[in-house]
Amino acid sequence: MRGLKDAEAEQKIFLQNPRQVRIGIVGYGTVGRATAEILSTHAAEISERTGGVSIVVTRISRKKPAAAETGVNGITVVSDWRQVTTADDVDIVVEAIGGTTVARDVARTSLENGKAVVTANKALIALHGDELFALAQQKNLPIGIEATVAGGVPVIRAISEALAADRIQAVYGIVNGTCNYILTQMEQHGIEFAHALEQAQAAGYAEADSSLDIDGLDARDKIAILARIAFGHAIRASEIPVMGIRNITSTDFHYAHRLNSTIRLVAAAERAEKGIHIAVQPWLEPRDSMLAKAAGANNAIFIAGESVGTQMLYGRGAGGGATATAVLSDVLQIARQIARGQASSSLLAGFHSGEPLRPVPRLRPVSWFLRLTVNDQPGILARTAEAIAREGINIDSVIQEPNMAKDRLSFVITLEPTPETTVQRAVEAINRFEFMKAPVLLMPMISSAEEHV
Amino acid sequence: MRGLKDAEAEQKIFLQNPRQVRIGIVGYGTVGRATAEILSTHAAEISERTGGVSIVVTRISRKKPAAAETGVNGITVVSDWRQVTTADDVDIVVEAIGGTTVARDVARTSLENGKAVVTANKALIALHGDELFALAQQKNLPIGIEATVAGGVPVIRAISEALAADRIQAVYGIVNGTCNYILTQMEQHGIEFAHALEQAQAAGYAEADSSLDIDGLDARDKIAILARIAFGHAIRASEIPVMGIRNITSTDFHYAHRLNSTIRLVAAAERAEKGIHIAVQPWLEPRDSMLAKAAGANNAIFIAGESVGTQMLYGRGAGGGATATAVLSDVLQIARQIARGQASSSLLAGFHSGEPLRPVPRLRPVSWFLRLTVNDQPGILARTAEAIAREGINIDSVIQEPNMAKDRLSFVITLEPTPETTVQRAVEAINRFEFMKAPVLLMPMISSAEEHV
Repeated sequence: MRGLKDAEAEQKIFLQNPRQVRIGIVGYGTVGRATAEILSTHAAEISERTGGVSIVVTRISRKKPAAAETGVNGITVVSDWRQVTTADDVDIVVEAIGGTTVARDVARTSLENGKAVVTANKALIALHGDELFALAQQKNLPIGIEATVAGGVPVIRAISEALAADRIQAVYGIVNGTCNYILTQMEQHGIEFAHALEQAQAAGYAEADSSLDIDGLDARDKIAILARIAFGHAIRASEIPVMGIRNITSTDFHYAHRLNSTIRLVAAAERAEKGIHIAVQPWLEPRDSMLAKAAGANNAIFIAGESVGTQMLYGRGAGGGATATAVLSDVLQIARQIARGQASSSLLAGFHSGEPLRPVPRLRPVSWFLRLTVNDQPGILARTAEAIAREGINIDSVIQEPNMAKDRLSFVITLEPTPETTVQRAVEAINRFEFMKAPVLLMPMISSAEEHV
Repeated sequence: MRGLKDAEAEQKIFLQNPRQVRIGIVGYGTVGRATAEILSTHAAEISERTGGVSIVVTRISRKKPAAAETGVNGITVVSDWRQVTTADDVDIVVEAIGGTTVARDVARTSLENGKAVVTANKALIALHGDELFALAQQKNLPIGIEATVAGGVPVIRAISEALAADRIQAVYGIVNGTCNYILTQMEQHGIEFAHALEQAQAAGYAEADSSLDIDGLDARDKIAILARIAFGHAIRASEIPVMGIRNITSTDFHYAHRLNSTIRLVAAAERAEKGIHIAVQPWLEPRDSMLAKAAGANNAIFIAGESVGTQMLYGRGAGGGATATAVLSDVLQIARQIARGQASSSLLAGFHSGEPLRPVPRLRPVSWFLRLTVNDQPGILARTAEAIAREGINIDSVIQEPNMAKDRLSFVITLEPTPETTVQRAVEAINRFEFMKAPVLLMPMISSAEEHV
């Protein structure tokens, strides 16, 4: 735990003009550009909400600044980010360069030069958050990370401020808009994954290289950040079990539909008996649930607190405008503090040194959906059922569509609530059968009577 | 607009012990008691999130303090609230007494005696918010009002902090859990209003005198507060058009069902061409919409921003635990400021003096649901249709169930998008017909292709 005394260290940002706070933007892609634009177009609203402090962009660094850019609106445009992070006319650095290598140097150099940092970079915070928050504490400077999770949806504030007096039990939901867009397209149009991915790329919801999204790594970084803030423990993102959506087929949606469900990529963290259970994987969700209603590129995050009950926050998880709004919420909060001479290190619980926790298995057994793809032959169901029975698991239903191709037949078995480790033993046994054309696709299920926590 | 300079006035709260902030609670009902309990049971979480500041209850005022209470856990229990609001050992007063008369005096006296104020009292803030925020500014003291709207759902923070850089276009949704519980019971069990109200009372979701809830006055106070914070304008709650849910029948739900819809009490405020449109009334909502999914005693608030898009915040809108969590979110934020010697007046946009805006009509025409209850006779439909045609309105559908009682027959007419003032002229004409057994029940409708804004 961080003491107040430490937070009252000597460093303060002194403004030349106490009614003006100066922003340097490092990286001028979608987020950097949108941040500058909103500061300009919403200047009246912003001045109203900061009590008259004006927030101005003084410096921008970008790969190839055009000669004509510098000086327009008094902004200095440079190619070397150090000319932003060490500049005298910058109070807050917005890190919008992405990645975890240069971005780390940008954040470190900014803090070392007495500048507050605001970032939307979830990979940076998931990987180097502890180090950066420790440096920020030492320098008594704030770091803003609202934009790292769920775009403009204020989930970091909800956990760290609004529910500060509560004991959080679980945080879970949809935190990757790209995957949710792809899954929604597959659900609504009966198309295959590859086709839906192309549509997401065409619509601007997925990058050309979208593996960070579709393999669940982006969601993993985000749930690591949420878990830290909610539970006050560091968890190494690399230790979080992850399954992406690459192997989900239109057939899975077909079977999900027959189970009155749809498929969503869910990142979840919850208190378990000894530690924190945390995972990213596709779930079958009842079609009339709020999670299933979260369609397209939206995010939906549930927070379950002991006193407050379960809340959901829903909205656009990405895009320049939404992300820049979140970046600016931190910029405004820090700017108000700076203008009053009160900027000091953040008190985000969870970002502190100490050995990270290792994730533990889920507390409660859940139901399971197993999709098998087989080369049809007699005895498949008998042998599969036998492998499941051997682990003491009850089968809830077997669903097989008629008239499928014999050499690549898909069918589904659903299981009654079973601990994950038990079901995985059964799946390993099934995967060894010679008739299996692909490994079992295993997804946990929420039945309509249950909730996630 | 409030300038920073004013906010830097001289008054500061000086702590005897800089690591302890002392709370006085005025009114010891559900919220007051839950606040004290959570402070005690979640002390570890709270200390973590305040960076080591402990928050202790030193004084409680309640109607009839038992002699044995005083001194337990070091708390002084009194019957006179002035012994809390003027006490030397109180830094923050939690006003949990309710109403608008004594509560106003409690808030004023607290501020005048240099104490920060936190309240869950929406009626107090809707009625006296400008006065209290002006006094708080003069004294340079914060007022916390997160708990006034939507219980533990952090909608005030979302608007005032998270979306501070955005231009809000509209705020709308379900802000009264009692009404939503009643409507959900009617929807799910086909029961009448009176029966559902009894169930809400039995379940503890409605008071014995529930008229503030079911007539929409509670929702009206809440939307007035949200509109102030979102748009920066004062709007007198008493000028907001309100229709409650008292006249909704099981027949309305039956017809709504046939239109693939359900009924929800929606409080809405949105920017119009010249001012703010604001109203509280029941709406027909598509059954697969997020608003329709908001069931039971929950609240669901949508915030539409120019840059951020539309967000929804969903969760328990009432109850001791949820409301106390919101009260404590403000208490913790203020306590952190006090412990650093930085407590100062809030910068909640919208609470300032100046002539309040008058609400204006809705910007866009919407579709309408008219339920007529008539004494059956020939020519009713012809005359009704004629009254509608006279205003140039297109009828979208007429729905009448067979085999209804002749002397109290209900049927429904739905209208294509029409401005509210036009549809009201038609309704006035219909209400004058001698066959009408009751005034037309008029509700706006969202068709499935539309959204509220």
